[in-house]
Amino acid sequence: MMADIDRLKSDLIETGKIGRSSAKRIEEFNQLDPQDGVTRPTGTQADKEIRNYAVDCMNAAGMDVPNDEIGNIFGRTEGSIPNAGTVMFGSHLDSVINGGMFDGALGVFSAIEAVRVLNEEGFDNQRPLEVVIFSGEEGSAFKQVLLGSSILTGKMSIEDAYKLKNETGISLTEALENIGYRGSARRNLNDVEYMLELHVEQGPVLDAQKVPIGIVENITGLAWIMATITGTANHAGTTPMKMRKDALVAASEIISFVNSRANEMVEKLRASTVGTIGRLNVFPNGTNIVPGKVEMGIDIRDVEQQNMDQLINETLAVFKNLEKKYGVKTSTQLPITHSPTPLSSTVVNMIEKSAEEVGIESIRMNSGAGHDAQNIAEKVKTGMLFVPSVNGISHSPMEWTNWDDIEKGLRVLTQTIKNLSN
Amino acid sequence: MMADIDRLKSDLIETGKIGRSSAKRIEEFNQLDPQDGVTRPTGTQADKEIRNYAVDCMNAAGMDVPNDEIGNIFGRTEGSIPNAGTVMFGSHLDSVINGGMFDGALGVFSAIEAVRVLNEEGFDNQRPLEVVIFSGEEGSAFKQVLLGSSILTGKMSIEDAYKLKNETGISLTEALENIGYRGSARRNLNDVEYMLELHVEQGPVLDAQKVPIGIVENITGLAWIMATITGTANHAGTTPMKMRKDALVAASEIISFVNSRANEMVEKLRASTVGTIGRLNVFPNGTNIVPGKVEMGIDIRDVEQQNMDQLINETLAVFKNLEKKYGVKTSTQLPITHSPTPLSSTVVNMIEKSAEEVGIESIRMNSGAGHDAQNIAEKVKTGMLFVPSVNGISHSPMEWTNWDDIEKGLRVLTQTIKNLSN
Repeated sequence: MMADIDRLKSDLIETGKIGRSSAKRIEEFNQLDPQDGVTRPTGTQADKEIRNYAVDCMNAAGMDVPNDEIGNIFGRTEGSIPNAGTVMFGSHLDSVINGGMFDGALGVFSAIEAVRVLNEEGFDNQRPLEVVIFSGEEGSAFKQVLLGSSILTGKMSIEDAYKLKNETGISLTEALENIGYRGSARRNLNDVEYMLELHVEQGPVLDAQKVPIGIVENITGLAWIMATITGTANHAGTTPMKMRKDALVAASEIISFVNSRANEMVEKLRASTVGTIGRLNVFPNGTNIVPGKVEMGIDIRDVEQQNMDQLINETLAVFKNLEKKYGVKTSTQLPITHSPTPLSSTVVNMIEKSAEEVGIESIRMNSGAGHDAQNIAEKVKTGMLFVPSVNGISHSPMEWTNWDDIEKGLRVLTQTIKNLSN
Repeated sequence: MMADIDRLKSDLIETGKIGRSSAKRIEEFNQLDPQDGVTRPTGTQADKEIRNYAVDCMNAAGMDVPNDEIGNIFGRTEGSIPNAGTVMFGSHLDSVINGGMFDGALGVFSAIEAVRVLNEEGFDNQRPLEVVIFSGEEGSAFKQVLLGSSILTGKMSIEDAYKLKNETGISLTEALENIGYRGSARRNLNDVEYMLELHVEQGPVLDAQKVPIGIVENITGLAWIMATITGTANHAGTTPMKMRKDALVAASEIISFVNSRANEMVEKLRASTVGTIGRLNVFPNGTNIVPGKVEMGIDIRDVEQQNMDQLINETLAVFKNLEKKYGVKTSTQLPITHSPTPLSSTVVNMIEKSAEEVGIESIRMNSGAGHDAQNIAEKVKTGMLFVPSVNGISHSPMEWTNWDDIEKGLRVLTQTIKNLSN
């Protein structure tokens, strides 16, 4: 068996045009244009077009392709042992606004290519194999991430999902109907034994270490702290230093604390902690006006719940101290908190073994980004494979993964499917 | 002689309606509405209306009222000694967007009231007395502060001023013609011996100390540093702490440094230093994205050029250090630098003596805000009097000065005019 990189490459280059305003075929890194990414939110014409492309591939490979009420697409190949648990594998096809051509699509077309290769070599799969294309992973249209896997696992009801509207006021029901992907199939995971997702890393670790395969042990937990610091806006010239309640000076202590404490946790605890103030708005935001208000969005992640809780609680304590120190008011909310998700050690071990069998180097690592696999992992033994993102860039037109890394990813995925299915 | 506070109060309350969207007469602090300030940029109907009101008052007090090419208005009362140097006094009538009713207008209507009082008591002024209303002090329409005094002192040519356009594309020439205040008089300061400006403090010092009169010894110098820090935007979840170039973390060092160093200079050097980061924009400004770029506007002021230079240079050095420490790029520009302006000790002493003569308490202080007086001070012996701003607030609908403080300001101004004129 040899995975066919040329066929996969062709699928990725062809679908990489879809949702790109220039509709340019991009075959090499140096053809990327930082202004010209792919835009395929759920329910758009681009979403329809890339789904149709994938469905055509799956039909051509002999799969029936039902889709469920949320637009998840399934392509099943029955196995030789009756009632054996399914090996499911896939990813998503929707994208962020102006994103990259591999995020999601790589996992879907690698899954399809794996089935084609196994068919061609006459591989006798004992378990059923099932390609899955999750609907609405990015949340770029309906502001709900991991939509398809949330429905599939029952974390969200289809009724609640159908109430979602996009920014133009179109309901999810209508959007799915418009593109022909509001299906009638109902799927649950009761018969599924294993789940695999191949994805680009979206971070710099593999690229920096020049290792082609990352095997994900944990998907990090995530918490957002949305905070407001209210001081007093005043004239920057006439308000003496001692008489100020400067909201931005207070905010700078939070920025400094979160960054230095996360760094310290990485160093001292060998933790995977990351802490980021990504969003900060100053009011009234005039050079000659002491800031009267600052709004901040803080993102904290770790694979250990304990580390996350520690950094969150310490940060909230610093907010409280600001009130005494600067005479400001602070308010904080945690609108998003996801616990860390450990992936299946059985599957991790199997991916590692499969990589060794095909002679491809791998390391174990964590995922700092969220994936549908984290929802599925709550019900099913789940594993993820990463391939390197050049310069660690993703969610950007400059996202790239080298073709030889993609080939290695495909080979390890295919070998793992074989090992899990028999 | 008694200054007539009722007449001045009536003028201020009446003109306080002009440019206020509700056109409400506000007589007491508790009638202020934080949403409902005065808006009188140069060339607007509100600007015309308040100028007309002032001109009517000056005509009624027997003054001829020429206006010059930039719309400065002059009202002269000749003196009894031929060719004696003029005593000029006044302020401005334009406002910021949604500002307060006393900023500028207090100085103009106090000046007019002083002339009325002197007329009524038959005061024999030896020097000519001249009320001046400076055109376009705030720069809220044509983005050029201290416009009228810049033309009057020759710091800016009338040709350059006429090239200015407001945000709707109307030229200053057209705007002045539209309101009937593009005059033909040409005025210079060769015959002017003294200049006086009464103004609200716009800061908290007098209000906190419960002193009715501040005598300005220096108008602080001002420098703006406009800076950009460029790092690398990255995924907040997948980019380990050690692999980041976070522009906001770098910026927080600047915020912290400018604040702590300015505080230190105030404490250790008894300096009047203020340092403010009033404007800060983060890009792309998403909670889950490591900031790739930060733009900052920094405002540094002091009455000592040496202190300003020290804080500016130390801040620029911190920017340079950020490049090594965080791997970011920094760029800095200083689009505005004004040197500190010492006011005339002769006039300062005379204001102090005059306050004593009328039994009103005063302190010496500095002005952290810019005023037309700082331009005039380069050519003419100039002084400024401040009255308290309640809670230190100005450039806001919540700007207020108590009527008894206004009366005290008027009495000290009038007494100083008498002393300087003879």
